[in-house]
Amino acid sequence: MKAIVSLSGGMDSATVLQLALDMGREVEAVGFFYGSKHNKYENEAAKAIADHCRIPFRLIDWSSIAQGFRSNLMQDGGEIPEGYYQATNMSLTVVPARNLIFASILAGIAWSEGAGEVWLGIHAGDHAIYPDCRPGFFNAMSLAVDMGTDGNVSLRAPFLYDTKFGILEYGSKHGVQYQLTRTCYKDQPIACGKCGACQERLEAFAQRGLKDPIEYEV
Amino acid sequence: MKAIVSLSGGMDSATVLQLALDMGREVEAVGFFYGSKHNKYENEAAKAIADHCRIPFRLIDWSSIAQGFRSNLMQDGGEIPEGYYQATNMSLTVVPARNLIFASILAGIAWSEGAGEVWLGIHAGDHAIYPDCRPGFFNAMSLAVDMGTDGNVSLRAPFLYDTKFGILEYGSKHGVQYQLTRTCYKDQPIACGKCGACQERLEAFAQRGLKDPIEYEV
Repeated sequence: MKAIVSLSGGMDSATVLQLALDMGREVEAVGFFYGSKHNKYENEAAKAIADHCRIPFRLIDWSSIAQGFRSNLMQDGGEIPEGYYQATNMSLTVVPARNLIFASILAGIAWSEGAGEVWLGIHAGDHAIYPDCRPGFFNAMSLAVDMGTDGNVSLRAPFLYDTKFGILEYGSKHGVQYQLTRTCYKDQPIACGKCGACQERLEAFAQRGLKDPIEYEV
Repeated sequence: MKAIVSLSGGMDSATVLQLALDMGREVEAVGFFYGSKHNKYENEAAKAIADHCRIPFRLIDWSSIAQGFRSNLMQDGGEIPEGYYQATNMSLTVVPARNLIFASILAGIAWSEGAGEVWLGIHAGDHAIYPDCRPGFFNAMSLAVDMGTDGNVSLRAPFLYDTKFGILEYGSKHGVQYQLTRTCYKDQPIACGKCGACQERLEAFAQRGLKDPIEYEV
């Protein structure tokens, strides 16, 4: 079966991509440029991951639509908060309706291309901060995609109930090239090591007893 | 309360806009250019309706995203079918995931702008042809928007269970300027009178004992 994988370039979606390939899907990866501070770095990472996996990669630019979307993650937003991922200030990095828009666009692409599935990298580590990563959202959105495409497209989030530790557990055993991935939220090529996204990633590698293969500023 | 109304320029969304105003909402209208054959004509109509109502109108262009979306409604698609609206060939005019994308983008805009509602013009006349106009879809999508925006945005479709006749019943009593609206699916300035969309519209006016104020080719 053909499947569309939402590939941000981070370690979650890179692992989802690997799982889809491991399950025998014919995968097309799609990335999004919507204007966040780290967007160009993660899009480059996504392309590198797709190239490594020898699958097609398509980049969808909806940055003009997201102009005016209120979030510190965006180019025109405030500072990226530092500190622990689940801290309250991390909610400043919510991008309004981002996963609704991702899933909806991907459903349209999938149905047009005869792909029966859309795979997303949302996971339990994001539940506290991002409302459009929670099971309640995902289950409703899955039904909306199912009904809205007349049963032609299913939404999948295989790590919906896993943390980054669980994701790393799978990916580190199945050849995911984490040195190609990009997690940091900041507008700089080298990961800062201090923002919530970096901290959550470093914590997962530490828990797993692995050294994170990417370079950090700190 | 501030509300975002999806304004296509057709008679359904024009009536939804009027209802939102009648219910005291502070309305911002948003139209979409996604590349359908009649898109520029309906966008012009939407702008004229918004101007008449003295509300702001914003046009969102996602035509580059919709490239490759398979539908006879699109510029690069096949012919617009003629004949009765509910006939099987009208399903050729389905645009994959269109209302998912509309609702998701509008949810992001609404949340960013502090608008608590998104109003859509989907109605019972579309149920047979368009899966993303059916109550099952709408109810699931409403929940997805509610959950995905942490309860900050509600999706509304006040004519979900009404036909165009019911919509016209309301609008003709409440000052909707139907001469400004655009319904025809074809790539021509004057309505053809033969496509399914024109036929459904003409039928509603006939049922209501009214003359449709727009010009027709036939």
